[in-house]
Amino acid sequence: MSAIASSMRDKTAQLSTDVEQPFPNSHKVYVQGSRKDLRVGMREVHCSASPGTFGGGLNPPVTIYDTSGPYSDPDIQVNLMQGLPPVRAAWIEQRNDTLLLAQPSSEYGRMRQSDPRTAHLRFEHHRLPLRARPGRAVTQMHYARRGTITPEMEYVALREDMRLQQHRQDTRYEKLLHQHKGQRFGASLPETVTPEFVRGEVAAGRAIIPNNINHPESEPMVIGRNFLVKVNTNLGNSVIASSIEEEVEKMAWAVRWGSDTIMDLSTGKHIHETREWIIRNSPVPVGTVPIYQALEKVHGKAEELTWDLYRDTLIEQAEQGVDYFTVHAGVRLAYVPLTVDRTTGIVSRGGSIMAKWCLAHHQESFLYTHFEEICEILQAYDVAFSLGDGLRPGCIADANDEAQFAELKTLGELTRIAWEHDVQVMVEGPGHIPMQMIRENVDRERSDCLEAPFYTLGPLVTDIAPGYDHITSAIGAANIGWYGTAMLCYVTPKEHLGLPDKQDVRDGIIAYKIAAHAADLAKGHPGAQLRDNALSKARFEFRWEDQFNLSLDPEHARSLHDESLPRDSAKVAHFCSMCGPHFCSMKITQDVRDYAARQGIDEIPIAIEQGLQEKAREFRESEAKSRQEA
Amino acid sequence: MSAIASSMRDKTAQLSTDVEQPFPNSHKVYVQGSRKDLRVGMREVHCSASPGTFGGGLNPPVTIYDTSGPYSDPDIQVNLMQGLPPVRAAWIEQRNDTLLLAQPSSEYGRMRQSDPRTAHLRFEHHRLPLRARPGRAVTQMHYARRGTITPEMEYVALREDMRLQQHRQDTRYEKLLHQHKGQRFGASLPETVTPEFVRGEVAAGRAIIPNNINHPESEPMVIGRNFLVKVNTNLGNSVIASSIEEEVEKMAWAVRWGSDTIMDLSTGKHIHETREWIIRNSPVPVGTVPIYQALEKVHGKAEELTWDLYRDTLIEQAEQGVDYFTVHAGVRLAYVPLTVDRTTGIVSRGGSIMAKWCLAHHQESFLYTHFEEICEILQAYDVAFSLGDGLRPGCIADANDEAQFAELKTLGELTRIAWEHDVQVMVEGPGHIPMQMIRENVDRERSDCLEAPFYTLGPLVTDIAPGYDHITSAIGAANIGWYGTAMLCYVTPKEHLGLPDKQDVRDGIIAYKIAAHAADLAKGHPGAQLRDNALSKARFEFRWEDQFNLSLDPEHARSLHDESLPRDSAKVAHFCSMCGPHFCSMKITQDVRDYAARQGIDEIPIAIEQGLQEKAREFRESEAKSRQEA
Repeated sequence: MSAIASSMRDKTAQLSTDVEQPFPNSHKVYVQGSRKDLRVGMREVHCSASPGTFGGGLNPPVTIYDTSGPYSDPDIQVNLMQGLPPVRAAWIEQRNDTLLLAQPSSEYGRMRQSDPRTAHLRFEHHRLPLRARPGRAVTQMHYARRGTITPEMEYVALREDMRLQQHRQDTRYEKLLHQHKGQRFGASLPETVTPEFVRGEVAAGRAIIPNNINHPESEPMVIGRNFLVKVNTNLGNSVIASSIEEEVEKMAWAVRWGSDTIMDLSTGKHIHETREWIIRNSPVPVGTVPIYQALEKVHGKAEELTWDLYRDTLIEQAEQGVDYFTVHAGVRLAYVPLTVDRTTGIVSRGGSIMAKWCLAHHQESFLYTHFEEICEILQAYDVAFSLGDGLRPGCIADANDEAQFAELKTLGELTRIAWEHDVQVMVEGPGHIPMQMIRENVDRERSDCLEAPFYTLGPLVTDIAPGYDHITSAIGAANIGWYGTAMLCYVTPKEHLGLPDKQDVRDGIIAYKIAAHAADLAKGHPGAQLRDNALSKARFEFRWEDQFNLSLDPEHARSLHDESLPRDSAKVAHFCSMCGPHFCSMKITQDVRDYAARQGIDEIPIAIEQGLQEKAREFRESEAKSRQEA
Repeated sequence: MSAIASSMRDKTAQLSTDVEQPFPNSHKVYVQGSRKDLRVGMREVHCSASPGTFGGGLNPPVTIYDTSGPYSDPDIQVNLMQGLPPVRAAWIEQRNDTLLLAQPSSEYGRMRQSDPRTAHLRFEHHRLPLRARPGRAVTQMHYARRGTITPEMEYVALREDMRLQQHRQDTRYEKLLHQHKGQRFGASLPETVTPEFVRGEVAAGRAIIPNNINHPESEPMVIGRNFLVKVNTNLGNSVIASSIEEEVEKMAWAVRWGSDTIMDLSTGKHIHETREWIIRNSPVPVGTVPIYQALEKVHGKAEELTWDLYRDTLIEQAEQGVDYFTVHAGVRLAYVPLTVDRTTGIVSRGGSIMAKWCLAHHQESFLYTHFEEICEILQAYDVAFSLGDGLRPGCIADANDEAQFAELKTLGELTRIAWEHDVQVMVEGPGHIPMQMIRENVDRERSDCLEAPFYTLGPLVTDIAPGYDHITSAIGAANIGWYGTAMLCYVTPKEHLGLPDKQDVRDGIIAYKIAAHAADLAKGHPGAQLRDNALSKARFEFRWEDQFNLSLDPEHARSLHDESLPRDSAKVAHFCSMCGPHFCSMKITQDVRDYAARQGIDEIPIAIEQGLQEKAREFRESEAKSRQEA
């Protein structure tokens, strides 16, 4: 057994004692689709009954969108050395559009697979690569445009529709949902997410389902403004820090905490092997920035990059199963001078690599000039584009400047070309943007890039809080999600300071789950508020355990409560450490309710009828006004 | 020496070894006003020169608004047992509008001062109380309306104008400031903050300077939408947890981290003594909710509260030096039934106390019926109103409902009455509000309450993240600050779960300093962006120490960096642990700059002129559009 296999065996054992433990009172449930092997996993949180003092009554379970895949299924024993079960393999095979290759098409891929120097790091159960048959396309966009509803589309429809179904079943909170109120920014959220709706969005390019045919372990998910806002987690080694095992472990934790996709941004010597381990064990789509690995192959000398080398890298990664590629093809030679007077120049790694290459060769970027060939490669595996914003601002001072928006226009042009090849596209966005300038980014992306899904990093709304940039950026992320961004790339407290460890990953993901959910609420996503309502009802009724279990991070909520009142009896107590047992506003409210029930509201000795009528009229007017603004 | 004096002596020694240590490379500086005893303390952060590879050159110091008072002045030896120097005492005395009383006017205050059972907890160097002479008013609003510019007004003008002065002096970043761009919401931010501008804002009721004549230790600060957004920190014992010493210590840390005011929300047995210790040692205004103490006096039985008891409590606290009182006079009997069908009823402690009292007595709230008498008391000491939102929503489901807005209208009515008495007023706001419904709160407050400063708790934009509510609420706080809220009441990670400890206080304050600063940027506050620009320039040039020192929490930023690269040499290294030494986008950008300088931008072999001209035209158009929207 190789060194890494032995280490992964230990990691497997460790994961089964922590990351695979179900959240308290949570159960894995599956929604059955139209075919036997189409089962959508969800997390169901069971709640206790209301105490008698709060009127009693059962509280229905709350179903939660679940990104953790087999890790949270007690019937599946995850073994990191084997990889996850290939849930999509049959769907891909049955479409009969693919060829099984005898070996990797990439020269580097072949070399790496047989290099004795990396044998000790290798994932042993790698799968042979698939590629589209000649003349066939295998992208979800291709199928969607042809009118075919794939199992992937049905899967995401069931997944996205879950909250809505629950919402339809549970009418108690109907009157308390705010989904048609307030300021809105034009998402078209359906009351029912059907497979046909998904197909239509993918066909129109407004949504993508990033699912490489070589990553059958991934559970389909959709990224688009008319669906739930998603969160991406960046992982990866650097030359200085971390190991393959640590990155695999972080991935497993990331999907437990709710990350919808991950990006492997590894640099250093063992990028190929790290990626293989991650993909084979990831239930969510995996993205990369292939230029990072290409740069390693030329020992960090950007000017030595060539199209052939980059092309081979794309094929190498596509055949491993990467689901989306960040490609900085919008960094054109002509835009580089626009960055010279910036405060922080070019902060995107990919962007600066390409800028350097362009200047060194006095040539247009090879990513731009070879863009159609890149499309052909991505089409053959259904890798989605994440068109990189290589000229994104790295500070408030550089926000929304000419360089940034010049590149965005080019990304729109490239989106159109990719769509001609049926390749799925999302577009990356900033970065560092003060709040008052965020909306312009969404509006421009929408018009310049033809409504392709927007995928933004933050944005950070100030530069002055290194160490807390998960917060500076969660503020921007919540806002930009509300305005229409489809996926938010997380930022951790270590941003600008170091490589995130497991706790940083947790802090980053939870901050971004908050931002994404706040955006879902603000967009009026049907059913999003049910979880808030269920948790608040539990809070009001002092059902502490339910409050913890319904929260984004049950373990953390419980541990903070226990700092003040560690005993189990405190978790059924009708008070908390803020006010203590002798006085509690929640309790007084209940007294008010009891009083009202006993005496009747009509007993209130002031003529409030007139006031209520006036207020009711005001409310009707303000609601009508909100609808006009929407 | 009493037990507490001994303990405070230890605390004093401890503070002098930690909280009184200057931030690295920071110096206390004073801006001299028109009179010798008017000196406004600020923090000046010195920066190192740019490395030669980045063109060299000195970087001017950055001056930072400083709330820490004498704690950060190495020339002042703080002794908690003595209290802070009374910086405003001479100003108050010279106005000759006050009487020095021989003993407290409050019965409870006199009793408490001579109670042998609390002697061991007593602050020994208490001062005799001041009160307005008969027929005189001592409020800043009174002086402002009379046309008098007080030293307090001059002080806050110098304090607020600091960034602007620096902005005027340092023209390097002029072109990078975004203050006239983007979406704006109608603050009237002056290019120069003059004492006359401050006077005008206070006279109009658009701003308050909460400075009780019995808290001469407090450094004047202003709360209003046309000034910097402020942050409040809640402290205080509960029956279950914490001690007086801990709360005094938290206060000292809170002002170091940038809290503009604090509220002492203590409950339990020793509220009077705790408050005395805090006020005597606080350089920032102190707020309270007097009904909390009144409730303790009747052993938690809301129905036993009386106007006389409450009145005595107001006088007791006013003579100790509380700078603003939260008064829930807007919770009228008629509104209580509006809360019965809410998900979480009445969550404000003050609100629920008054609701219970109203129902128990079948009477209108005594706070409402005695409101003019309350005004007379507050006028005699210059205590400001913080009109409490006792019916604020406690969850997303209850946001912006009839109960909430009915109360807000009443708060507007009460504002008008308070202003007839020259009493300063701010108005409290929610709570839990989803993003799309936040703006309506600011708009309504502005019109219903006649532009009195808005002071909001959060709001939390989702209910589902207990343990992370400093983040859920910082999102709402940044937005509501942008829309015009003058002061943000912080929320800690312990919200809903327990009483915050020192680390929670830190996390809460920094999250809120981020929100407030993000709002200042978004409002286009002149000069706010200078700190961002200076920090980003330091970041770009790998001046790690400057980056840490200019950040909101230098110690934390440094410690996160050190987790990956602990050696001192790493802090002058031109790389970081994210990419390692062999590749760095910042470095490549510099290469690009060097290249551009060497070759000349004109060498770029693509005709970009036309493109640039087109973009320049677009920019002019979009800026014109932004201005129209503003």
